[in-house]
Amino acid sequence: MASWKNLDTLSSYKKLVKDESRVDIKTALSGEDGAKRMASYKVPIGAGLTYYYGAKAVDDALLKKLAALAKEAELAEKYKELYNGAVINTGENRLVLHQLTRGQLGDDVVADGVNKREFFVGQQEKIAAFAQKVHSGEIRNAAGEKFTTVVQIGIGGSDLGPRALYLALENWAKANDTLKMKAKFISNVDPDDALAVLSEIDVAHSLFILVSKSGTTLETLTNESFVKNAIKKAGLDPADHMVAVTSETSPLAKNSGYLEAFFMDDYIGGRYSSTSAVGGAVLSLAFGPEVFARILAGANEADEAAKNEDPLENAAMLDALIGVYERNILGYPSTAVLPYSQALSRFPAHLQQLDMESNGKSVNRFGEPVDYETGPVIFGEPGTNGQHSFYQLLHQGTSIIPLQFVGFVENQFSDDVVIEGSTSQEKLAANVSAQIIAFACGKEDENRNKYFAGGRPSSIIIGRKLTPKALGALLAHFENKVMFQGFLWNLNSFDQEGVQLGKVLAKKVLAHETDGALKVLSDLFEI
Amino acid sequence: MASWKNLDTLSSYKKLVKDESRVDIKTALSGEDGAKRMASYKVPIGAGLTYYYGAKAVDDALLKKLAALAKEAELAEKYKELYNGAVINTGENRLVLHQLTRGQLGDDVVADGVNKREFFVGQQEKIAAFAQKVHSGEIRNAAGEKFTTVVQIGIGGSDLGPRALYLALENWAKANDTLKMKAKFISNVDPDDALAVLSEIDVAHSLFILVSKSGTTLETLTNESFVKNAIKKAGLDPADHMVAVTSETSPLAKNSGYLEAFFMDDYIGGRYSSTSAVGGAVLSLAFGPEVFARILAGANEADEAAKNEDPLENAAMLDALIGVYERNILGYPSTAVLPYSQALSRFPAHLQQLDMESNGKSVNRFGEPVDYETGPVIFGEPGTNGQHSFYQLLHQGTSIIPLQFVGFVENQFSDDVVIEGSTSQEKLAANVSAQIIAFACGKEDENRNKYFAGGRPSSIIIGRKLTPKALGALLAHFENKVMFQGFLWNLNSFDQEGVQLGKVLAKKVLAHETDGALKVLSDLFEI
Repeated sequence: MASWKNLDTLSSYKKLVKDESRVDIKTALSGEDGAKRMASYKVPIGAGLTYYYGAKAVDDALLKKLAALAKEAELAEKYKELYNGAVINTGENRLVLHQLTRGQLGDDVVADGVNKREFFVGQQEKIAAFAQKVHSGEIRNAAGEKFTTVVQIGIGGSDLGPRALYLALENWAKANDTLKMKAKFISNVDPDDALAVLSEIDVAHSLFILVSKSGTTLETLTNESFVKNAIKKAGLDPADHMVAVTSETSPLAKNSGYLEAFFMDDYIGGRYSSTSAVGGAVLSLAFGPEVFARILAGANEADEAAKNEDPLENAAMLDALIGVYERNILGYPSTAVLPYSQALSRFPAHLQQLDMESNGKSVNRFGEPVDYETGPVIFGEPGTNGQHSFYQLLHQGTSIIPLQFVGFVENQFSDDVVIEGSTSQEKLAANVSAQIIAFACGKEDENRNKYFAGGRPSSIIIGRKLTPKALGALLAHFENKVMFQGFLWNLNSFDQEGVQLGKVLAKKVLAHETDGALKVLSDLFEI
Repeated sequence: MASWKNLDTLSSYKKLVKDESRVDIKTALSGEDGAKRMASYKVPIGAGLTYYYGAKAVDDALLKKLAALAKEAELAEKYKELYNGAVINTGENRLVLHQLTRGQLGDDVVADGVNKREFFVGQQEKIAAFAQKVHSGEIRNAAGEKFTTVVQIGIGGSDLGPRALYLALENWAKANDTLKMKAKFISNVDPDDALAVLSEIDVAHSLFILVSKSGTTLETLTNESFVKNAIKKAGLDPADHMVAVTSETSPLAKNSGYLEAFFMDDYIGGRYSSTSAVGGAVLSLAFGPEVFARILAGANEADEAAKNEDPLENAAMLDALIGVYERNILGYPSTAVLPYSQALSRFPAHLQQLDMESNGKSVNRFGEPVDYETGPVIFGEPGTNGQHSFYQLLHQGTSIIPLQFVGFVENQFSDDVVIEGSTSQEKLAANVSAQIIAFACGKEDENRNKYFAGGRPSSIIIGRKLTPKALGALLAHFENKVMFQGFLWNLNSFDQEGVQLGKVLAKKVLAHETDGALKVLSDLFEI
């Protein structure tokens, strides 16, 4: 059994705190040594992706210390316990099984009398069969016509991850003639969200997926009601247009109001649910189940790679260690995620949830306050757009923000144009390459307004092309990085008590049980 | 003439630094005093919007000190100099005239022999006349059919602001039957961006707006090339489908390749250009020029309100002062923008550019390094989505992140549904109200995992409905807030030297003039 200790009780961490030596990236990256370093500071992630960290403020000596920290914190052992079915989510007394949706990493995991791998595969097969019937036209609308659009109704993890993945592959699917159905998403309780989506789709040819584990999520049920009204208004029966993704014990299971129900369980948190039925239903319907299977295969490759017990050969673990070093030793409070791929436009929003909801905690897994900083603020937008926006602050602001780049050799569509001697894809890649060096090395200038201090650390994940498999690996890499960081900080990365208080107070407002400042606010809003 | 001094040289600031008293929001907001405070700590913004700051860590004594800082920093005088045409953008030796696109705030401003207000109004009239001809069908495609879609090609400020404003009003326009043309945006140099948009539109019925001040922005010209190829492929003449927004001296002006050219000048930076021709052309075509005029009128109301010399009666100035207090005295490194309106989904991305590109600087307006923190990291997503995502960290993380909420009494569509006794709009407003109190007041709990420390400051801007006028005021409020913060930090908020180095290095990569680590990166990407 691994032992769970606070970061600041580990002797390898105490050594890091005392160690005042710092790596100067600018020097480290210059000349032929810099070239060698950039080429060799890399670890494979899986599915053809590689993590390059030559522009991080680390050197061989520091890497050794980080590896010692990984060993002392027993990161590999803790991951092993997790995938073998230990109760890692202590607060809620739950197993943590999202990796099991992608493959069997260790022992059989049995919970509630069920082999959980078999359960997940069973749901995948059920979804695949349903999707194929929809695509073939065996399942069709009341007028006997094929469904052309799928609409996911969910919020939080039932929205951000699946939406980010759908957008990441929409154009890839178009380019490869495998876009079976267009997908849309309704999430916000703001009525304008549902009404806007409904104003854009052809309801008669749309299939709606209601995603709610408990079957009682108020936002989601409210949005379902908009959808049902729209279906009825079109003279149709909602039961012919809706499926549910829910738990087996929810009121939505075995309910004649839905064409079919696919099941999730308590062992996968919302932000980790993209590879469960929560992402599986919408992505299998949109792209075909074989494409979803490739996402799972890519994720499984990264999950397997994360088992490597050598921290310097384990991309997720190393990424986690460097992140904790930046947060706790260097004191950087935020991290930017900058994918140089328009397809990844909503991937930063997914990572923002994944990371901040998992590790934005002040108590350890035993409910005791910790005396060190935990999860950073995560934000980001696709490059090159960000370059023309907030990069000014990243380059010349008073704070240092570590950067996480992602880039690909090829674009998703096969088309491109040559302008001034280079393709767009080459321009994109030239830009991300240039940014890494600009941030790290800076530029001297007598005019201080044109001076760049440099010393701004970054890493980059490089792949050949953003395919379903590469996307799966990218998703799992970050999930595993966040998991390892949670282990280092000794947090429970799998609960989210911080979202409860707002819910309780919102109910009070709606029940008109308010006083003081809250009453004033509800009066201002005329509630 | 106002005198431009570093923040840390001002005696009122030095007093703030020495002053160790802190306002406890939890106490301040409790009971009847808390209710009174929430109701009275407010300032009108213009166009029916109000800035409420009762949940900020301020009290009457501190407000007095902040007002003294505003006086000593001569914020009102500096704004006056700006709108009267002083060279505020010192680095580039330029006037700063975005407010003048919305109205005449002071003296006539003449530059390059031209009355600039007349110039801006002239362009607005030219755009209005053109848009009306497109809408009436006087200007039509080669087949004699009406244009139905308008596509903006631009990057940075030519994209984020106009896109955020379009999305903010798209549903309002649908609900009010004034959506004249659907708008799309192409920005990223990633070829998949242009190809995705082109795969979704009907090119034959699309009008394209190329936005580039110099007429030489590489990303934008590259994307234009994709568009021209697509137009030609459809057997059409690009010159019948394209207009330009550019400077009068650019190669795009008076060019037979474009149906028409609308002009911008050097006195409005990209991130401030939404109310110039950059936003004017696409928004007038999408919604009609009279809707764009209402955006301008709302912005002008906020610009006028920002002239108020009493800092406590000037919402933009007070917002700026509290932000600097939080950044420099309380030491908070980032700020979240959280609009409770799905229509404002991309407004945080616009504010991210506006704020971080303007004030992410380490040198003052004279090019001398400053010894204090400047612009914070800005990030955000619409509520209630954020609540199911990164709010965990905001509530229970180890860092305090000040919050800027925005909310409306009514939604944009007139439709809504009642579930469990309340409408969606009421649920939305109940949630934002609840969050403000939850963040400020927290919750005691013996279980530390369910404990909320509170003391997390927020403000909220409340309006009746997100109309064009309210949107204009919201936009201008933040522009003016950023401007006042730049004055306080003694920065030039209107240049962006930090984006240059990356451009220079990217050109080197494309010209194969690299060595060392940059060569390794370009090899990895096979450039």
